[in-house]
Amino acid sequence: MNTQDFCFILKQNSHLLREGCFGLEKENVRVNQDGTLALTPHPAVFGDKGKHPYITTDFSESQVEMITPPLPSVGEALGFMETLHDVVTENIGDELLWPQSLPPVLKENQEIPIAHYSGEFKDKEYYRQKLAGTYGKERQLISGIHFNFSFSEKLMDVLLKSGVCGSSMEEVRETVYFRVVRNFLKYRWLFIWLYGESPLAEETLNVISLKTGEKQPMKCGVSLSLRTSPLGYRNREEFFIDYSSLEAYNMSIDKLIRENRIDGPHELYLPVRIKFLEKDNGSPSYIEVRIVDLDPFTKSGVCASAIYFSHLLLVYSLLKEENGSLTEEELQRATRNQDMASCYGRDEKKELKCCSTTVQQKATSILEDMERILSEYGVLDDEIYRQEMQHNLYLVQNPEKRIGMVLYESINRVGFVPFHLEKARQYRETTISGGYRFHGLEDMEMSTQLLLKAAILKGIGFEILDRKENFIRLFDGKKEEYVMQATKTSLDSYVSVLMMENKVVTKKVLERAGISVPGGYEYTSPEAGMADYRLYAGKPVVIKPKSTNFGLGITILKHNYDETDFKAALQIAFEHDNTVLIEKFIPGREFRIFIINDEVVGILHRVPANVTGDGVLNIGQLIDMKNEDPLRGKGYRTPLEKIRKGREEEMFLKQQGMDFNTVPKEREVVYLRENSNISTGGDSIDFTDDIDDSYKAIAVEAAKALNVKITGLDMMIQDIHAPATPDNYAIIEMNFNPAIHIHCYPFKGKNRHLNHKMIKALGF
Amino acid sequence: MNTQDFCFILKQNSHLLREGCFGLEKENVRVNQDGTLALTPHPAVFGDKGKHPYITTDFSESQVEMITPPLPSVGEALGFMETLHDVVTENIGDELLWPQSLPPVLKENQEIPIAHYSGEFKDKEYYRQKLAGTYGKERQLISGIHFNFSFSEKLMDVLLKSGVCGSSMEEVRETVYFRVVRNFLKYRWLFIWLYGESPLAEETLNVISLKTGEKQPMKCGVSLSLRTSPLGYRNREEFFIDYSSLEAYNMSIDKLIRENRIDGPHELYLPVRIKFLEKDNGSPSYIEVRIVDLDPFTKSGVCASAIYFSHLLLVYSLLKEENGSLTEEELQRATRNQDMASCYGRDEKKELKCCSTTVQQKATSILEDMERILSEYGVLDDEIYRQEMQHNLYLVQNPEKRIGMVLYESINRVGFVPFHLEKARQYRETTISGGYRFHGLEDMEMSTQLLLKAAILKGIGFEILDRKENFIRLFDGKKEEYVMQATKTSLDSYVSVLMMENKVVTKKVLERAGISVPGGYEYTSPEAGMADYRLYAGKPVVIKPKSTNFGLGITILKHNYDETDFKAALQIAFEHDNTVLIEKFIPGREFRIFIINDEVVGILHRVPANVTGDGVLNIGQLIDMKNEDPLRGKGYRTPLEKIRKGREEEMFLKQQGMDFNTVPKEREVVYLRENSNISTGGDSIDFTDDIDDSYKAIAVEAAKALNVKITGLDMMIQDIHAPATPDNYAIIEMNFNPAIHIHCYPFKGKNRHLNHKMIKALGF
Repeated sequence: MNTQDFCFILKQNSHLLREGCFGLEKENVRVNQDGTLALTPHPAVFGDKGKHPYITTDFSESQVEMITPPLPSVGEALGFMETLHDVVTENIGDELLWPQSLPPVLKENQEIPIAHYSGEFKDKEYYRQKLAGTYGKERQLISGIHFNFSFSEKLMDVLLKSGVCGSSMEEVRETVYFRVVRNFLKYRWLFIWLYGESPLAEETLNVISLKTGEKQPMKCGVSLSLRTSPLGYRNREEFFIDYSSLEAYNMSIDKLIRENRIDGPHELYLPVRIKFLEKDNGSPSYIEVRIVDLDPFTKSGVCASAIYFSHLLLVYSLLKEENGSLTEEELQRATRNQDMASCYGRDEKKELKCCSTTVQQKATSILEDMERILSEYGVLDDEIYRQEMQHNLYLVQNPEKRIGMVLYESINRVGFVPFHLEKARQYRETTISGGYRFHGLEDMEMSTQLLLKAAILKGIGFEILDRKENFIRLFDGKKEEYVMQATKTSLDSYVSVLMMENKVVTKKVLERAGISVPGGYEYTSPEAGMADYRLYAGKPVVIKPKSTNFGLGITILKHNYDETDFKAALQIAFEHDNTVLIEKFIPGREFRIFIINDEVVGILHRVPANVTGDGVLNIGQLIDMKNEDPLRGKGYRTPLEKIRKGREEEMFLKQQGMDFNTVPKEREVVYLRENSNISTGGDSIDFTDDIDDSYKAIAVEAAKALNVKITGLDMMIQDIHAPATPDNYAIIEMNFNPAIHIHCYPFKGKNRHLNHKMIKALGF
Repeated sequence: MNTQDFCFILKQNSHLLREGCFGLEKENVRVNQDGTLALTPHPAVFGDKGKHPYITTDFSESQVEMITPPLPSVGEALGFMETLHDVVTENIGDELLWPQSLPPVLKENQEIPIAHYSGEFKDKEYYRQKLAGTYGKERQLISGIHFNFSFSEKLMDVLLKSGVCGSSMEEVRETVYFRVVRNFLKYRWLFIWLYGESPLAEETLNVISLKTGEKQPMKCGVSLSLRTSPLGYRNREEFFIDYSSLEAYNMSIDKLIRENRIDGPHELYLPVRIKFLEKDNGSPSYIEVRIVDLDPFTKSGVCASAIYFSHLLLVYSLLKEENGSLTEEELQRATRNQDMASCYGRDEKKELKCCSTTVQQKATSILEDMERILSEYGVLDDEIYRQEMQHNLYLVQNPEKRIGMVLYESINRVGFVPFHLEKARQYRETTISGGYRFHGLEDMEMSTQLLLKAAILKGIGFEILDRKENFIRLFDGKKEEYVMQATKTSLDSYVSVLMMENKVVTKKVLERAGISVPGGYEYTSPEAGMADYRLYAGKPVVIKPKSTNFGLGITILKHNYDETDFKAALQIAFEHDNTVLIEKFIPGREFRIFIINDEVVGILHRVPANVTGDGVLNIGQLIDMKNEDPLRGKGYRTPLEKIRKGREEEMFLKQQGMDFNTVPKEREVVYLRENSNISTGGDSIDFTDDIDDSYKAIAVEAAKALNVKITGLDMMIQDIHAPATPDNYAIIEMNFNPAIHIHCYPFKGKNRHLNHKMIKALGF
């Protein structure tokens, strides 16, 4: 390969260098509230652990493994992992996820249950039993993170097209990934030195020696990462793998297997692995970085900076000149450097094996070279990556600020178990109160985020087909369903949706089915409406544009109105649409009734933004207090919106003779808005169990009349406890894309789990 | 009833007076090309004549009866009837519809087949046999028109609310309709005198005398309307019916039945009938005017002016003061006036029975009174009605211009049979060439018009739920289907439609199914697109906005393009959308493949507007000639658009060194447009039978991949005769609302009857 040409092509297409696919895997040990190993089985709610694509077990039955699919950015991979962490947390009752790579309290003769498998997956259990014998169960309990990365397909296309590193895609992949791995192996110590996070084990922890087979305490030097140290997750011997070419690589591994030194490539506990997918015909598909410790300072356990640095180091490894092979001596030297970083990483003055400089000096020179080269290729043009690079340069100048150092201090101060247990409890609370989020997908609609969380729990695969449109594919084996905006599905026919979309049609169909709707007529000019004045005069009416939008242009004329009022109302309505409806006014409260497959699954009533007085605080303070609810946010990223203290609210208070400084009496309810929209701080109140069944039956009939499987039906009800009569209710509208999150996280009332019900309705 | 209050309320709500429901029924005798009675059975294609709501038989098997549903305007009723006439014409082969109330050529001992019924409808046949005995088959062959009318529900609501004519809806209906009938009976002679159209029978026609039972020629005085004359369609005796109240009315009819003088109300051959629907609890529902002759001058047989005048006369009858009852003498006098108008109507100086004035004088005074009263109540505010009223005033001043007079002249000049036969042939041709239209619904989409025509043929009921939206309900017994824009139906799931609507999703799904689509990527800025330039350089590409609209913003870069061209193309595309696709260019021609339920039912290719030279005419003349095709119109009301001679066409010719005066060589094809849209004069060419089956199979696979039942799929094909390979075709787009009319009325090729196929697919 001509390195100059190679670099030229990469420089020409430098915007593709940062792109790629990113995946994360991590393990967490389940513990009881006292920090002891949880001995309960892997929760049944996660289904078959042999088949679940996201949530399974690792070595031990108590060790949950979480796996993200390949995603288009580091940010999304981190978010997905956080969501997996949330889903697991939400479904293990009182148990906690142990936030440290090194195991929790292990009592003497601690039972460490091997993950149980059955049926077609039984072999997995046998394999684990063999591992337990060879490496010891305690060592196998050590948990960590794997970071999977592949370069973008476009980059590969460009390299292939240029011919600089092979005439087939297979050759291009081989060239790229072997170069990256060779360099990464050399520089990996730097990653551990910066981001190692297992400096101390619980005092009583003993692991069997890989050399003697006898149990010994897990301690070494001024350790920073016991997990990646020689005491950690290693093979019994150091194998030589030839990284000079794919052929040489395969031969060296085949030799190890032939000599019965390993079971297969999966038993090679390497710091970085080359991975192969069937579609790539034996050429490398992606790289798995295996030296990332769990981060007790982050809820999900994955330190974002560590992953960004891994990524930068992998890109640097592609760009950095090297000689095309690694001798056994070079490999051993790299491993000694890893040992130095993991076992002596807290001593920044320690010398490296490769050279007679201190670790800090060497780290500084590598990071500076990284910054130079990555800048030159435009990789640091992205704000996040630039900041992360600066962060690493700061760490090397202030090595005591490294996360492992901070962690060491914290553990020393608080104690190994109390420190991690406190963190675990805190993360659990954060998870429970923010359950409406799918991290990394916060730009998608909340209903879709919730649906995807439900999919994750059930082990249903998904693909985001069009993110802006919230268009996804769900799949499980051969079964697949396409869904847009959570409730636009294959369950409903197109024409049923069009019927709901058209208010005139909805009304006609419901009327024919004997269901009450507000009677009335359509008009295409104010004059036509006025001509019919005598038809309505004296009766309470609603005058509204045909297509209503947030209630704009609607006037309610209840009684004692005259021709002038009628005319004014018509004119207002015609400002919003060229067709206006005059309908009989239906008194009562409006309820949103959610139906899935002929069953009412949630009923909600919305109340305008309000506060309830306590006789002490003023309205402004009451608003602030109410806004502290974690369900309230800004910009539709939460199930409820914060109540604003804006001009509209001020005006509305003024009309009531109040302002933000007024102190309402105890239990006095003060409204801040006319409209009840959630988007302006309104409250959602669950009424699912409180409304007379007759209205539910009517709602189901309405859905059947339009042949609708999923709908959010708006019904006016005069008295929720009195059975329905033709005159005490009316269906106002049927919505074909009703939000589900408002029924899951109401201001008051139960989570109705509509996301799980949707997944079930879709046939999964 | 206080007439003054009654009139006051009507005046206050005068805009409602003209409104109402309008329906038409008419009979036509089927004849052979020589004018003899067609003896073939009622065509089987119309299904069970006992159940078909629109097309059935009257007395004779050879006598087609066509019935419109109640419609909201006279115009729509006329249009619907014309469409029924078209549908019948299109389905009786070479036979013609006899355009005259009086029968065609009846040979000596002519067989006149009584309509054949079976099963539950067998009684209808027996009843007809009885009628044949009483009235004679020849008389029963006389055909005519019934005009059904009811006032608007709103008018009834206003009257009820006011309390001026009853305290229940039943009372209001009784007051209104009996008043109307009493007046109408008095003035009906005027209608016949103005619009009678059966002045002469075929010379050899004999009908049996209702008095003696012997056959006699059908002739009387200076007849204008033999059909409504005493020789025509009458009972054997003149019955007295009491119109003073509903109760009196019912009693007088019950008496006739009790005395065995009639079989039931259906045997009362009255000039106008009161009709009762179950929903109105025994009160009158609508009025049936029965004195309208077929109009040989109109294709549908219904003279629009006659119907408008009937309507005006009915409204006048509501407004015109009268004394609340009709004595037997008054009734008889009214009948004598009818006889005078029908038997002596051509003599305008004839005296009326009621008074010693001439017919013309009396007609003038009534018409002037009508105009005065109808103007006062605003009924003539509508342009059409004002014109019709003027037309009638003109006729009374120029009685020789009355349609019956003109008809008499024509028949005398040409001969009874030749005249009507020529008309019938002419109407048949007009029908055949304009078959894409549903008269009266021309404002609806052509695809919907065609679908409704197909529904009519099959006897499927329909309701227009939202006319602007082309939203209809089809029903047949308990089966019903809702359809919007002809192809938005219950057959497709909502999400399948959303998948088609989203090009990115469509491509991803097709790709996974192994179907060729143009490969490429999406970009959200010109810079991002430029950055990938090297990925595409040298390969033919299409650069286009994500949402294409009539091909705007699309650039094809085939070869030899450079960075500047690429940039320019990107900029053009970004002017139309903020997301742009760069795709591999697929050579070939584009075909629209229409699929219904996994079957290819039509394939079309569109060619830009063009003319083919003959070596003589210039381009302008060739365009004019091509535009004479009745399929070509303006403003999307026809399957093809006229080729324009506008600036674009001029410019396009100029680029080719031509102008409209250029005379192309024989067989030289000259294109007038770059784009192939039908809307700019393009040609649609049917290829359904010409394309290799492999492409059809792929199209069906594509539909299955998206789980789509109805789609118009756009495919690029390099060579329609070569079987498909992954590289010689690609699917560009799948349309969820494809037009069906273009496959029914292509420029070249067969009618693929997609409207009938849609009806079948919907399960009817």
